[in-house]
Amino acid sequence: MTGQPLWTLQLDRSEVDELAARADPEAPLAGVRFAIKDNIDLAGHPTTAACPALAAKPAGSSATAVRLLLEAGAVPVGKTNLDQFATGLVGTRSPYGACHSVASPAHVSGGSSSGSAVAVASGAVPLALATDTAGSGRVPAAFNGIVGVKPTRGLVSTAGVMPAVADLDCVTTFTTTVAAARPAIAALTRPDPADPRSRPMPPRPPVAVAALMRVVAVPDGEMELDPPHEEAWRAALDRLRGIAAHVVPVDIGPFLEAGRMLYEGAWLAARYAAIGHYLEPDGPHLDPTVRRIVLRGRDIAGPDVFAGFERLAALRAQTGTVWADVDALMLPTTPGHPRLSEVAADPIGVNARVGRFTTFANLLDLCAVAVPAGERADGLPFGVQFVAPAFADPPLLDLAAAWCGEPVVSAPADPGTTLLAVAG
Amino acid sequence: MTGQPLWTLQLDRSEVDELAARADPEAPLAGVRFAIKDNIDLAGHPTTAACPALAAKPAGSSATAVRLLLEAGAVPVGKTNLDQFATGLVGTRSPYGACHSVASPAHVSGGSSSGSAVAVASGAVPLALATDTAGSGRVPAAFNGIVGVKPTRGLVSTAGVMPAVADLDCVTTFTTTVAAARPAIAALTRPDPADPRSRPMPPRPPVAVAALMRVVAVPDGEMELDPPHEEAWRAALDRLRGIAAHVVPVDIGPFLEAGRMLYEGAWLAARYAAIGHYLEPDGPHLDPTVRRIVLRGRDIAGPDVFAGFERLAALRAQTGTVWADVDALMLPTTPGHPRLSEVAADPIGVNARVGRFTTFANLLDLCAVAVPAGERADGLPFGVQFVAPAFADPPLLDLAAAWCGEPVVSAPADPGTTLLAVAG
Repeated sequence: MTGQPLWTLQLDRSEVDELAARADPEAPLAGVRFAIKDNIDLAGHPTTAACPALAAKPAGSSATAVRLLLEAGAVPVGKTNLDQFATGLVGTRSPYGACHSVASPAHVSGGSSSGSAVAVASGAVPLALATDTAGSGRVPAAFNGIVGVKPTRGLVSTAGVMPAVADLDCVTTFTTTVAAARPAIAALTRPDPADPRSRPMPPRPPVAVAALMRVVAVPDGEMELDPPHEEAWRAALDRLRGIAAHVVPVDIGPFLEAGRMLYEGAWLAARYAAIGHYLEPDGPHLDPTVRRIVLRGRDIAGPDVFAGFERLAALRAQTGTVWADVDALMLPTTPGHPRLSEVAADPIGVNARVGRFTTFANLLDLCAVAVPAGERADGLPFGVQFVAPAFADPPLLDLAAAWCGEPVVSAPADPGTTLLAVAG
Repeated sequence: MTGQPLWTLQLDRSEVDELAARADPEAPLAGVRFAIKDNIDLAGHPTTAACPALAAKPAGSSATAVRLLLEAGAVPVGKTNLDQFATGLVGTRSPYGACHSVASPAHVSGGSSSGSAVAVASGAVPLALATDTAGSGRVPAAFNGIVGVKPTRGLVSTAGVMPAVADLDCVTTFTTTVAAARPAIAALTRPDPADPRSRPMPPRPPVAVAALMRVVAVPDGEMELDPPHEEAWRAALDRLRGIAAHVVPVDIGPFLEAGRMLYEGAWLAARYAAIGHYLEPDGPHLDPTVRRIVLRGRDIAGPDVFAGFERLAALRAQTGTVWADVDALMLPTTPGHPRLSEVAADPIGVNARVGRFTTFANLLDLCAVAVPAGERADGLPFGVQFVAPAFADPPLLDLAAAWCGEPVVSAPADPGTTLLAVAG
């Protein structure tokens, strides 16, 4: 009972009880209540994507991710609010109302997965499904002091998820600990013929993937963080030196350049391709900022899309060389934590800045885990993210667990390698 | 001395002799003369892409593919004619003149790698470099009775190659036998930091890749081949039954639908992105058909590009299921062999039909080898191609070798598997 507009729909007590009664008591998530971001289908209920005009039509079947959690014994309790059409990183772009951080009514919750993050952070549920295209599964984790796991693209099916940028969308989890995320991620990680972008975990990890994450890179040079963020980041750097065997600096300029392409370049056309048909006619069911942003994508020329790919291919190659020497990268999840009033004053600019460190991950085919990293001097939660190449998910979860002081449990992917404890 | 306009540039005898003198006599291709399609850089000579306006400026360095052949001891003798900007499958779209099949002055050579194919088929050189985006490395092989090897995208660097559709372009070889292609392909297959799309051969083949190609699929249903082609195709089917352990029919409809997207859909915008800046102002240095086709790409909208990707992703998933049961696919390389006069009468329509069976390979991330398959009743060469999933190149070369009655030499990729001879 947060008083926040975190739900777009709460299931009736009777429906929840019925679903709970149906769950296999031996299943790995038996009885675990979970929330579902409302751009993911739950059979029998509408998927609004925070657009009330879509509330009339119930989904015929559940998304694969929801079905897999149900099969693992988990019990859905409702659909959660989001930045409309999952377009935003702030949590304010919704006709259902703006969420705020559980730590401060004046500061944004982060988005787009605002309701799912608040649901977990406020204790309403121990697990929530979210999505992450630009950072929607990580930014609200940072702003609410919880764990957000963004798997490698394609490992978790997006069948039954409303697309934002279909090539980049990922289904993610929010939990309060890495340990709580593990069984959910295990249940969700399945190849799915219904998702053309589904990719299996390779039998052996690619060469860039470390069995154990010994070398963690951090950004070299000026980060342009808000002052309270800067102080918390310095503390996080100190803490990292107690956890990683080696901490090395890297130039993250090319990563950030890639990330800027998501909102400024070709990929806006992808968003228009996915969402454009919902944007006419205008009306109170549409968030004006989301509409303005996505309509820009209509006018992007096809050749410019390919010119963008060309640039991204070069940046992917350039950033790829980092993984020859580095196992994972630690970054602040965001450069600051804006107030609701700051977002209202500059809805597009503030949002873009919030995403500075998250937007590159899916464009560059990386996996990421956002974890709490203490509090800022003003008491707001601070969060960092660990980022690694595609298919490094198991060792990355262990690095995140070590960071959180939790058990490191994954076996190294290569059976020829001895397991060493990474925890400090 | 074919009398054909196959060269855009022939190196001086003295330069060839000097390069030959520099080659390591112990190298695997020591002294082997080769031709270079003129969209691939050779240091000190212009890369015209069959556009005479580009003839003034010599390339500063050689393409990686050329450099690797030089390092392997091979000796370049000249640059070869092509359908301008590698846009075409006929060999007639060049201000340097139209090539024809070595078997008939009335029939096209195929393209875009026309000069490279004629150079090998006429005996001018034993090896030529070409490129293949839509089929340019296979169609001219079929029309001239030679072998065209199109590796998996990314295995051979495209650094120093003028792009046509950068995401799809492949460097390929023409030879008269599979055996002659092997050392060239071996020399060319290197990861290249200079090519952002470079991909290494994975240490273990993906699950879809067979160590030995026992199950070969052929198209189910009506193929709409020209009558002399139809007869030659039936003979090829009979011959296949003596080579493959199992021959099974598959529906190639989804493959062909994917292939049509290359000339009709989003990918024309990619061609405009790569070539568009050469197309204004118009003049005799531009092929009018190439110009007309590529300019169409200018007006393709960004969102339609992503809609095309969405459709392609679905078709890739749909066609991908074929590889669960099938090791390779055999198809006629083309549905017919047009006359120069037919191309002149309908330059775009006839070209599109020529590519019916080749355009899907790179869109669907497949490797392919085009091989001779006897003659049609009218004496023209007939060709088939073998197609397989990405990274199936080594076993696919062996299947092609078995077809040609040549030795099967590759070790199976998985050392746990016993090598069985496939040759019939």
